[in-house]
Amino acid sequence: MEDRVLLAHGSGGKLMHDLIKRSFVSTLSNPILDKLDDSAVFELSGNGRLAFTTDSYVVSPIFFPGGDIGKLAVCGTVNDLSMSGAIPLYLSLSFIIEEGLLITDLEKIVNSVHQAAVEAGVKIVAGDTKVVDQGSADKLFINTSGIGIVSSGVDVSGANARPGNKVIVSGTLGDHGITIISQREGLRFSSALQSDCAPLNQLVAEMLQESCRINCLRDPTRGGLATSLNEIAKQSGVGIEIEEKLIPVRDEVRGACELLGMDPLYIANEGKLIAVVEEEFAESLLIRMRKQPCGERAAIIGQVCSQHPGRVVIKTPYGSSRILDMLSGELLPRIC
Amino acid sequence: MEDRVLLAHGSGGKLMHDLIKRSFVSTLSNPILDKLDDSAVFELSGNGRLAFTTDSYVVSPIFFPGGDIGKLAVCGTVNDLSMSGAIPLYLSLSFIIEEGLLITDLEKIVNSVHQAAVEAGVKIVAGDTKVVDQGSADKLFINTSGIGIVSSGVDVSGANARPGNKVIVSGTLGDHGITIISQREGLRFSSALQSDCAPLNQLVAEMLQESCRINCLRDPTRGGLATSLNEIAKQSGVGIEIEEKLIPVRDEVRGACELLGMDPLYIANEGKLIAVVEEEFAESLLIRMRKQPCGERAAIIGQVCSQHPGRVVIKTPYGSSRILDMLSGELLPRIC
Repeated sequence: MEDRVLLAHGSGGKLMHDLIKRSFVSTLSNPILDKLDDSAVFELSGNGRLAFTTDSYVVSPIFFPGGDIGKLAVCGTVNDLSMSGAIPLYLSLSFIIEEGLLITDLEKIVNSVHQAAVEAGVKIVAGDTKVVDQGSADKLFINTSGIGIVSSGVDVSGANARPGNKVIVSGTLGDHGITIISQREGLRFSSALQSDCAPLNQLVAEMLQESCRINCLRDPTRGGLATSLNEIAKQSGVGIEIEEKLIPVRDEVRGACELLGMDPLYIANEGKLIAVVEEEFAESLLIRMRKQPCGERAAIIGQVCSQHPGRVVIKTPYGSSRILDMLSGELLPRIC
Repeated sequence: MEDRVLLAHGSGGKLMHDLIKRSFVSTLSNPILDKLDDSAVFELSGNGRLAFTTDSYVVSPIFFPGGDIGKLAVCGTVNDLSMSGAIPLYLSLSFIIEEGLLITDLEKIVNSVHQAAVEAGVKIVAGDTKVVDQGSADKLFINTSGIGIVSSGVDVSGANARPGNKVIVSGTLGDHGITIISQREGLRFSSALQSDCAPLNQLVAEMLQESCRINCLRDPTRGGLATSLNEIAKQSGVGIEIEEKLIPVRDEVRGACELLGMDPLYIANEGKLIAVVEEEFAESLLIRMRKQPCGERAAIIGQVCSQHPGRVVIKTPYGSSRILDMLSGELLPRIC
């Protein structure tokens, strides 16, 4: 089976990183692609820096509490642009539709696309529609690609974390992933847990106003916080230490994770970011973040160190430490 | 059934145009999107014009004579940029893979992507990989989005055709579509017919060197020549008259079309363009086009007129004339 693509190759974790390196980057290599940040950033005819990103969305079910595949497709790409410190401006929208999709469902989703685009302040400027026969797709897949502008002075990359930097998360972890899995498994929670799916560009704009010395930004989607922190540690060649008790997780998510044997640190988020920032302004940044709707429960959860480069270490509530590895295997297919 | 998406909604023809207008453009409307050209063209922070386009590729089979889904995905998006008169520069690449795809097949396709990108002189700078469970997709779908630069003085749009303009096609029609259908149906031809899949940016660059007064460019993919000409006639509010005997079609394609009851004017092409140009330099442009590998069989096939605005009329070899409508219904699903 190892000569075939497995579901785990799409997990966001170790197998996916290996596949991308082996099958894509080795062949398509160029200095912009090789950075493997959330967006490609490049000069365009000498006139400032552009950010460019793409994502396909295959989430199942296509409607879920807190959003749908349309909202997700806009927010996800807006967030990938934001994670490069870019101001998102223009999006493309490409639908692969399975024959038989209800047109009312299609229109609901296009309406969500519109609402999310208005909320994020981006314009949908290009589109494409393909229809495939029944059984050749599952209801609807959406690709959005996006273009943004990176202001001068902003230099955000997964490769910029430095020892002494503080690690911040913008809020509670695991809300999106647990919402999706609960829909699939028919789990019910006493409270109304919903996906955190939201555009983060306003939050990032506020953060960059506080200081443009934000070194890394990443949205912990597939593979969760653990995988994103591992990516940063590897790209920057540094160690990262975080403390479990500082990480905000909702009680419902914690409960569901215990029930399902999952770890919230590996669960996907769609409206959260990780920031790695200079220590001296971490506290003032945190205060500013908490004033934003998407940052109310922001917290400093650890720091960057020079020890164990490429590795993330987590201090448990019991005082012991363990290595927090990248996701391996498949946790939850079609989460986004 | 009319409240569900049908295969014919993806045909490139009338139903697709209706769906796009009704379900997409009415909700997402903005001046850039509403133009419905092959690429969106807009000023970016006052520094020249950018072209931006997206396309998802769902062709079946994924390998075919003359190319594969990877080559198609690069050429198709390069061509959409070229049809706005843009110089294509950067592409994104997003794969939706069905679990079980052979990794050797994946790597062959990535290699084709690379070869086509080198041929077209574009860079793949951003990517995404999703894997869905078996039965939720068919082997592989690819989305490519692209960015290009539009030089000053170039103004190419489906809305720019004017009475008196000449209509040129760059070569034989129907090669791609007939190749795909022959693969599916197991038809064999005495000669080795293959897809015309090719990047057209070099041809367009040559054409723009001859004159930047090229009014419309369009690549007749889904829906073929007939549909593209109808789009131009409607966007520009003009009539178009073409002559059937002037339209280059290979004998094998003509034969297959007779066998299958199809019209080559509705069959998809992936390496051909239609140009609508000022009459006075149509001949010199044609000479220049014919020196290019992608333009060897270029021909003037008709002209734009002020009569019957929004309609295309074709003169048959028998001297009679008939209206050449947009494709209605589904001719050939998953052709690109």
